[in-house]
Amino acid sequence: MLGLGLIGGSLVRAAAAAGRRVWGATTSAEDARAARAEGYDVVASTEEAVARAGVEDALVVLAVPLPAVEPVLREIASVAPECRLTDVVSVKEPVADAVRRLLPRARYVGGHPMAGTSASGWAAGDAALFRDAAWVVTAEVTESDEEDDEDEAGAEGDPGLWAEVARLALDCGARVVPATPAEHDAAVARVSHLPHVLAAVLAAVGADGGPLALSLGAGSFRDGTRVMGTRPELVRAMCEGNRWALLDAVDDALGRLGAARGALASTGSLAATVAAGHAARRSWERLRSADAGSRVRVNSHDLRCLVELGRHGGRVVALDDDEAVVALPE
Amino acid sequence: MLGLGLIGGSLVRAAAAAGRRVWGATTSAEDARAARAEGYDVVASTEEAVARAGVEDALVVLAVPLPAVEPVLREIASVAPECRLTDVVSVKEPVADAVRRLLPRARYVGGHPMAGTSASGWAAGDAALFRDAAWVVTAEVTESDEEDDEDEAGAEGDPGLWAEVARLALDCGARVVPATPAEHDAAVARVSHLPHVLAAVLAAVGADGGPLALSLGAGSFRDGTRVMGTRPELVRAMCEGNRWALLDAVDDALGRLGAARGALASTGSLAATVAAGHAARRSWERLRSADAGSRVRVNSHDLRCLVELGRHGGRVVALDDDEAVVALPE
Repeated sequence: MLGLGLIGGSLVRAAAAAGRRVWGATTSAEDARAARAEGYDVVASTEEAVARAGVEDALVVLAVPLPAVEPVLREIASVAPECRLTDVVSVKEPVADAVRRLLPRARYVGGHPMAGTSASGWAAGDAALFRDAAWVVTAEVTESDEEDDEDEAGAEGDPGLWAEVARLALDCGARVVPATPAEHDAAVARVSHLPHVLAAVLAAVGADGGPLALSLGAGSFRDGTRVMGTRPELVRAMCEGNRWALLDAVDDALGRLGAARGALASTGSLAATVAAGHAARRSWERLRSADAGSRVRVNSHDLRCLVELGRHGGRVVALDDDEAVVALPE
Repeated sequence: MLGLGLIGGSLVRAAAAAGRRVWGATTSAEDARAARAEGYDVVASTEEAVARAGVEDALVVLAVPLPAVEPVLREIASVAPECRLTDVVSVKEPVADAVRRLLPRARYVGGHPMAGTSASGWAAGDAALFRDAAWVVTAEVTESDEEDDEDEAGAEGDPGLWAEVARLALDCGARVVPATPAEHDAAVARVSHLPHVLAAVLAAVGADGGPLALSLGAGSFRDGTRVMGTRPELVRAMCEGNRWALLDAVDDALGRLGAARGALASTGSLAATVAAGHAARRSWERLRSADAGSRVRVNSHDLRCLVELGRHGGRVVALDDDEAVVALPE
């Protein structure tokens, strides 16, 4: 585990609790001290952690913020250029691009657990953080029907490594969402990065109303601005790292907010805005309870099929060498 | 208590728990049945409840959604045109206007407890709903230094009734924020109504991303869209009832979101947006812990002074016949 912050630290705890052997490295002396004090195995450097992964044939997990990804990949390249690698960074195309450039001989499958808190650092971690969370495991499949050589890692998916990463996620209590990097980035721009931008806008417009307005901020303001309690550099790294997909989401939000503005000004009605918002929230709540839906069993090597099920809200809830069990929403 | 939904029902419970005699009426047979089953005194009609308020010299509390305010005021006018009245509706100028038109001889001071949940109806009520919440009690004071005749109810505030309403709020565990109706409406547009509009926009943009996007919605999406779980007609009544102040807030949000869009497109940086949002959230958190600030004691009849303290984030935490204790933020 490279990085022992909120996500890396939670993952170390969850993986250890699942019976896995895990060791880590971090550039934060504070996180290293705290993790060691709780009995976890923290080595002195990224190089040492990665060299040991080579010796013990272990999966390398990159759990650093996006701006640190390239420097860490360079460190890995100097020690273990052919490692098996995944990550838990919040965008997937930029990481995949960096891996292709800096670690072209590595086998890589991206990951992104959709879990977090506004706190950060080892101390904020929790072995239960991923319980029932969605954990995207990426597959680089194309829309074409042409079957590529699956042995060529990185070209058209790597079912073996995909399953290895998915098993780690399942061991941590998460459900696995198969997706392409591009579709992942477009989706999280809407449901993870846009919420941060809107929270920033809401908080600032509230503060523009002075102390009276802020002192009247209650439940809707508290929840709508919660993520602005997060450290600004983490929010920026996450959102700016997904710049182009986020721009599309912001444009959609500007369009919908402008439409609400126009309706309110011209007719005084927010009927369409509120109806769409309410229906969307209900759809999300139904998808959250996907356990109520059906189960399908598919070939666990068929990444194209898994990605297609992910597009329909499917989540892998169990996996063996041949078969993946996918929960589909109703 | 006219109306026994979430707010009225919570207020009945809290006032009774504080040792007050309270009775209510509602047009919802379900709420009436539920309240009676818990031993509360529910009379057959608004007219009966208000007539009894006249006999027992009680304060009438209007706890109906904005669209029901005018019909209920007409019912009150037919029975007790000179009653003492407050309300808990989420906008204050439209209610004050309606009272002036339909109940010109009543004494009226507006109220608005900043508390709620996305559930509704008597069953969702809770005696503790108002604990530590801000409860605006309005005062119709002007900016001029000219002293008006304070005996003329409604012209330049009614300190006697203001204190009576404030005491009800304090009895329910709330802190009282003095404000003019117009300043209240402008403030809640920013911190209560705009959050609902942005939640609707966020939910819809998420759903526009299809099942994959919705299935990846986690903490930031959950919190940012929470209030869209509320019944659409309640959200609309609240937001549309504050149309002009909300338009200003939406315009400010469009301006800030447009600026974020421009910065992201041109430089890739969200530094200004995130810094402003983070600072605003921190300001709100500091104001929330206003108990750490100072206490000032002022003449409880001096509504102009109380309103000025409210503008600076002050909250009345205790009140006797002569003196109000106001907690000020640091």
